[in-house]
Amino acid sequence: MKNFKIIIEYDGTRYHGWQRQKKDATIQGEIEDAIWTMSHNRVTLYGSGRTDAGVHARGQTANFHCDTDLKPEDFQRGLNSLLPDDIVIRKCDQVQDTFHARYSAKSKIYDYTIVNHPVPPAMNRQYVWSIRRQLDTMAMQSAMRCIIGSHDFKAFEGTGSPRAHTIRHVMAAALRESGDRYLTFRIEADGFLRFMVRNIVGTLVDVGLGKRLPAEFRQILESRDRSKAGATAPARGLCLMEVKY
Amino acid sequence: MKNFKIIIEYDGTRYHGWQRQKKDATIQGEIEDAIWTMSHNRVTLYGSGRTDAGVHARGQTANFHCDTDLKPEDFQRGLNSLLPDDIVIRKCDQVQDTFHARYSAKSKIYDYTIVNHPVPPAMNRQYVWSIRRQLDTMAMQSAMRCIIGSHDFKAFEGTGSPRAHTIRHVMAAALRESGDRYLTFRIEADGFLRFMVRNIVGTLVDVGLGKRLPAEFRQILESRDRSKAGATAPARGLCLMEVKY
Repeated sequence: MKNFKIIIEYDGTRYHGWQRQKKDATIQGEIEDAIWTMSHNRVTLYGSGRTDAGVHARGQTANFHCDTDLKPEDFQRGLNSLLPDDIVIRKCDQVQDTFHARYSAKSKIYDYTIVNHPVPPAMNRQYVWSIRRQLDTMAMQSAMRCIIGSHDFKAFEGTGSPRAHTIRHVMAAALRESGDRYLTFRIEADGFLRFMVRNIVGTLVDVGLGKRLPAEFRQILESRDRSKAGATAPARGLCLMEVKY
Repeated sequence: MKNFKIIIEYDGTRYHGWQRQKKDATIQGEIEDAIWTMSHNRVTLYGSGRTDAGVHARGQTANFHCDTDLKPEDFQRGLNSLLPDDIVIRKCDQVQDTFHARYSAKSKIYDYTIVNHPVPPAMNRQYVWSIRRQLDTMAMQSAMRCIIGSHDFKAFEGTGSPRAHTIRHVMAAALRESGDRYLTFRIEADGFLRFMVRNIVGTLVDVGLGKRLPAEFRQILESRDRSKAGATAPARGLCLMEVKY
């Protein structure tokens, strides 16, 4: 049995998220099916984590064990010719048996992109959250400082998907403006709760719109109470950029 | 009668180009219909020029004459709520009677975007030309220098759409690399022949792939012979960025 590590880029627009489902198209399902076509192995593809419906990835990472003579470059070429255009294998390597895309991961980086302009964009709109009212980015910067470090992020966890352990370590978080209207929130952490990035962004946007004071953001984080945080930002603005090992 | 100038952004993927057609969806057709819904005027929308099927715009400019009490801001808001999500009116102003989006234009800027990587992109693929083999960008830079200035661009004109006058003045042309795989060709000229940018890009890519020497590019330009130039680059990589007046 060989263990293969793949790095995947996908446009999540058409998919019901990462995780295999019985009927609906998912990233995991498409790739597992393509691996079966190539190798006649019914493999389980272990992702670094699930991404939700509509969320994109430039650097999702996964691994699978397969009894095959195929080489990594054969898999990459073959999968890319079998997969639909909106899923691409950027890299494929054979790795040691103990490598696990989820358990071996040290950190993950997500980008969340907002277009902040009175007029929404026509191009690229499936990759951004369009917000028409001007955001106070200084207030957002000030609010978000408190998330760096180890914190209990329970206030930003999606309801209905509780984890026993809700403390995560955020190594970096930054908000950068580019062009006349793009705003990208980048966050790196050792792990993420479900909806965590989208709930943080939704709450930061409340601060940017003046609905909440920057200081309230820290109070929400410390409250560990989901009902205090803002609405979940739309999936389409979120992109898993990189998984570090 | 008032004369309105509009600046339009569109994702051309779904459209059969700018120009109104009987059956197929076009940018001009969609906007003229929306103006009719708002004002009950059957207007003609004059674009700065046609864009072909699949070509995008961030700054297409057009004007229309309309007998109405509506103000520019009414039109902008109303059209944006009537139009599909992939066409957006970025700006609307009332201008003097003599303004004509095509005849008053001083220059236009087009961007052509290439992703140059052995693995094609999954995201943004409707906005780029994916070229897998490594391009020699130095050779392309060297080849393209000769297009600056006034030249007869007949060699780069689409067949079957001849113009009497094929001399155009190119004010600027540049090729810039960004990220690890994006390559953008930007060109500003006082006017463009049909397929001119896409034919220039197709020929420059031949140079980048080593199929032609940089010096041949100038010979092709000077030959005024379309049959000597390279293939037309795909529509999806082209975007009309700005029209200057």
